[in-house]
Amino acid sequence: MNKIRVLNSAVIAEHFNMADAIEAVEKAYVLHAQKQVSLFDTVFYEFEPGAADMDIKSGTVDKEGIFGMKLMSWFSKNEEKELNSLMGNIMLYSRETGAPIALLDGASITGLRTGAAGGLGAKYLAREGAEELLLIGTGNQAPYQLASALIQLKTIRRVTVCNALNFDWARSFVETIKKRLEKDFLSVLDQDTPAYEALKEKLAIDIVAEEDIEKAVRRADVILTATPSKEAMIRKEWVKKGAHLSC
Amino acid sequence: MNKIRVLNSAVIAEHFNMADAIEAVEKAYVLHAQKQVSLFDTVFYEFEPGAADMDIKSGTVDKEGIFGMKLMSWFSKNEEKELNSLMGNIMLYSRETGAPIALLDGASITGLRTGAAGGLGAKYLAREGAEELLLIGTGNQAPYQLASALIQLKTIRRVTVCNALNFDWARSFVETIKKRLEKDFLSVLDQDTPAYEALKEKLAIDIVAEEDIEKAVRRADVILTATPSKEAMIRKEWVKKGAHLSC
Repeated sequence: MNKIRVLNSAVIAEHFNMADAIEAVEKAYVLHAQKQVSLFDTVFYEFEPGAADMDIKSGTVDKEGIFGMKLMSWFSKNEEKELNSLMGNIMLYSRETGAPIALLDGASITGLRTGAAGGLGAKYLAREGAEELLLIGTGNQAPYQLASALIQLKTIRRVTVCNALNFDWARSFVETIKKRLEKDFLSVLDQDTPAYEALKEKLAIDIVAEEDIEKAVRRADVILTATPSKEAMIRKEWVKKGAHLSC
Repeated sequence: MNKIRVLNSAVIAEHFNMADAIEAVEKAYVLHAQKQVSLFDTVFYEFEPGAADMDIKSGTVDKEGIFGMKLMSWFSKNEEKELNSLMGNIMLYSRETGAPIALLDGASITGLRTGAAGGLGAKYLAREGAEELLLIGTGNQAPYQLASALIQLKTIRRVTVCNALNFDWARSFVETIKKRLEKDFLSVLDQDTPAYEALKEKLAIDIVAEEDIEKAVRRADVILTATPSKEAMIRKEWVKKGAHLSC
């Protein structure tokens, strides 16, 4: 076996931040639109429906000389064991020879990538001057969605946070989120970059919890969801004309 | 990221021989028949049809507490670069938590597994007393097929080797194969085991090259193919009644 590079979550956190993720995801979308990316079929398997599953996503970026795969598993009972419920890895391969090149932890990159994609969608598709951002869901993925949106949506003036299962979770989320955004996202951005300036500025706006989802939806210009729920939480009658949804 | 075990091809060669592979593959087939194994969908992608492709195979063995995936690529032009045309890796994960457990080189295990499976099929399905073994193909996979068959088929008295593209390749294969079987397969088996005794004994039988495939097929009791060819090489009229084919 040839030598491969192994990047664990600590190394990735040091070298790949939300600004990098936004740049990479935007580039990937452009390459995809230019038909320079091929996605292979997704494999999905439920070990225990609603409680444990895994998927394998894979594809090739010929222009970059690589192809790769990511396996991510979700075992909801991990939380009882104080383990991350999402675990997995990425493997990259040479497009010239098929040789494995690198093994990367999958969880942190997945959080950054998914957050980056949600924010990018809103940046290009939300209406100009959007001021009210609604975040539904307060789990693992929620801070990534919020950090990405705050970096990319210049006109947001207030963030409302809902949790359909338990309002207390929304309340404790808003109590700690600014510190988490500062520590986990702002501090790893390069200073004096537009992303750093944007996120720093947005840490001054109001981030509030709201128990009444209808009320929160009715005023939202941009709605970001970060929930594995299969139940509907939003009624179409509540959605403001021109609002952007990222689900 | 939790700690994972990395097993490269040298470590695997030291700890996993053809007898181990036969035992493991037989166990997997039994578990599959008992519906204790689930196979996920296979992903297949051709980078250049007929010249470069890759596949991802995956599945779970709940009883063993693991699930896993294997990505193997085939880049035919690697041979010009003196690289293995088959490269790839296996990743294993905990069935309890989804955590990655181990990264293994894929090429050597694939050779052993494929060889083990061909021999097992012949062991259980070929007619009793089969004496004439035919091996079609003389590439990477051929020694694995032959080693496995010689360990498992007690009554074989002669091996005939064909190569449909070039008879010289069959001739040079038979010139060196006994030394290769001894070095790569016999020497890594535990002495005084049935597998060791069986393979050692079989190294005394005739292994001959044959240019005329029809003649070779007509006398064969067991036909093992080890070729990526999509062209037919064997006509059904040539196949002896009761002959076993492994393709």
